[in-house]
Amino acid sequence: MSSLEARDAPPGPAGELGSQFLAEIREQPRALEGLLEHEDEFARVAAAAVERGTSLVRMVGHGSSDNAASYGVYAFGILSRLTALRDSISLTVYYGTELDMTGSLVIGLSQSGRTPDVVEYVTRARRAGAFTVAITNDPASDLARSAEAVLPLGAGQERAVAATKTYLNTLAALVLLAAHMAGQGRRCADDLRAVIGQLDTVIPELEQRIPEVALPFAFVGRMFVVGRGVELATAREIALKLLETCRVAAEPLTATDLAHGPVAALDPFFPVWAIASHDETLPAVLEAAARVRETGATLVASGSAAEWIVDPDYLLPVPKPPVPLLSPLLSVIPGQLFAWALARAKRLDPDRPSGLSKVTFAR
Amino acid sequence: MSSLEARDAPPGPAGELGSQFLAEIREQPRALEGLLEHEDEFARVAAAAVERGTSLVRMVGHGSSDNAASYGVYAFGILSRLTALRDSISLTVYYGTELDMTGSLVIGLSQSGRTPDVVEYVTRARRAGAFTVAITNDPASDLARSAEAVLPLGAGQERAVAATKTYLNTLAALVLLAAHMAGQGRRCADDLRAVIGQLDTVIPELEQRIPEVALPFAFVGRMFVVGRGVELATAREIALKLLETCRVAAEPLTATDLAHGPVAALDPFFPVWAIASHDETLPAVLEAAARVRETGATLVASGSAAEWIVDPDYLLPVPKPPVPLLSPLLSVIPGQLFAWALARAKRLDPDRPSGLSKVTFAR
Repeated sequence: MSSLEARDAPPGPAGELGSQFLAEIREQPRALEGLLEHEDEFARVAAAAVERGTSLVRMVGHGSSDNAASYGVYAFGILSRLTALRDSISLTVYYGTELDMTGSLVIGLSQSGRTPDVVEYVTRARRAGAFTVAITNDPASDLARSAEAVLPLGAGQERAVAATKTYLNTLAALVLLAAHMAGQGRRCADDLRAVIGQLDTVIPELEQRIPEVALPFAFVGRMFVVGRGVELATAREIALKLLETCRVAAEPLTATDLAHGPVAALDPFFPVWAIASHDETLPAVLEAAARVRETGATLVASGSAAEWIVDPDYLLPVPKPPVPLLSPLLSVIPGQLFAWALARAKRLDPDRPSGLSKVTFAR
Repeated sequence: MSSLEARDAPPGPAGELGSQFLAEIREQPRALEGLLEHEDEFARVAAAAVERGTSLVRMVGHGSSDNAASYGVYAFGILSRLTALRDSISLTVYYGTELDMTGSLVIGLSQSGRTPDVVEYVTRARRAGAFTVAITNDPASDLARSAEAVLPLGAGQERAVAATKTYLNTLAALVLLAAHMAGQGRRCADDLRAVIGQLDTVIPELEQRIPEVALPFAFVGRMFVVGRGVELATAREIALKLLETCRVAAEPLTATDLAHGPVAALDPFFPVWAIASHDETLPAVLEAAARVRETGATLVASGSAAEWIVDPDYLLPVPKPPVPLLSPLLSVIPGQLFAWALARAKRLDPDRPSGLSKVTFAR
């Protein structure tokens, strides 16, 4: 049974649909600064994880937290040469499978720290010998208590139901932890500070431009969002924003997945949002975008390499970050702002989407 | 660049849209018998995997093969208490990350055995110390040559572009390998033989019933397909069939994912297909179905525990298999037949969906 509690966010100013959502999108550079205040804690937890002989990283979370975990696969892989996986919660919590978790670093991801099956997974993983770490915006939460170590997101209270700043800070938390485990923590923090400056510039710019791009999408019922590698997390997160705030059936796909079936569904009324960033996956994304172009589907080109996509209908580029691995912290911004603008165009309230609450207790 | 080759399937009888697709759905019990003829090979490869000290199972594939890998997570977890993951191809193949794969059992999944980045991943994994196994319908393929061991799907040639019997046989191959590694191979093969008998009964029954269920969906543009645990694979596979053969934007979700955002998008014109099977995840699926019911969305109840879903609009149950772990081999059938019937109702050809070919070379 779900026991949905009363929403914990007060209503925004009357008549301003999505004012909290927008305020939190704007706050993201400050929220990221908030995370970096905890840099020492990341260094300590990373040292402990190395000392405990971490050979596998298991991440668990739902919704935006799980989307961020898709990024963790690359952050731990590229920086620390560790296999990181979005582990199955069902296997441990519902089927009761007892895996040997010695040598596993388990990361429980939950903004609220109150997602019941994530707490239960972490509790069991700790018993099974894993080094358990909670990454949460509430260091006094059940999740924080269930884990051996806690890393705070430091994003400040998030009130809109649709996550923004806690998603961005979860990306940053994962890459900062991975970097510290690889002895590159200091440099990663400096790079994140450079990204803060880029966010300060790009957010107000896109906020002005995006409403006129979003307006023609008011009648769109379905979309694909395509990314690959580090940007799969971004594709998943943008699709989720569109679903929960705009009621668009948006499905995230890797560039290769698209060719394995979904491309057959495309037509001029089925838009595709493609995220192209400057890294090793760029050719695959450009190839996928070219296939989309052939079908006549409307094509939105985004990411730091957006201008490499041939003949898009809409172009929403973001700055190139100091290192390619940090691209997703910038690439998600156009998606968040697009969801905000499209929800308003459809007279929907992204602060309080129908049927959702900020903390989800559904199992 | 994609280099799509000419389709390798001859056209079906004129005027009969989807005749190959239907023929291959019907052939599935025989295809499964074909797999079981290779039981000794599964026993040998399982013994080798155990001898090599397998501590982690890495599966790679695209499309239906990747959907089957979602099932492998549970087959290896429940039977062999091994962590199995759908590994990132991008990390190894595009980013060139060199992971230590000692102790890894790597399973490359490809019906054709010609998916380039799967072949490349397996090649690199072998070099990195993994025990590599190809599961493919073509034991003479590039994938088979790149791996140390080959397990044939034995499904016979699959001609329709949309996979059916090779998907089912990939599920069976994964569970049979996992069972042999756990010393339960003989029993698993017996259980699979019992499932063959159930398939022989249920396929003709559903083939008669489903066209009238599918017809009202001819105007549907989007759907959710909900499963959890072992049935997440089924949800993913049914969604892919609907996308590629019927041009429906169908998105697979776990029961819990639904509550974390997507439920906000539901309305009476957004149908949900729920897969309820008799296992530990049933309460979560029933709870999700109840939430769907509240939104007024059309609800299709399927799976062996379909009748436990309260007040569905359509009921498509399947028999209860000898063990819960084998449910997905039966649960996928209504989805395949629904896709066949809906494609025909929409005058689309599931044998040759526009823009697709049987072998995908896109990267």
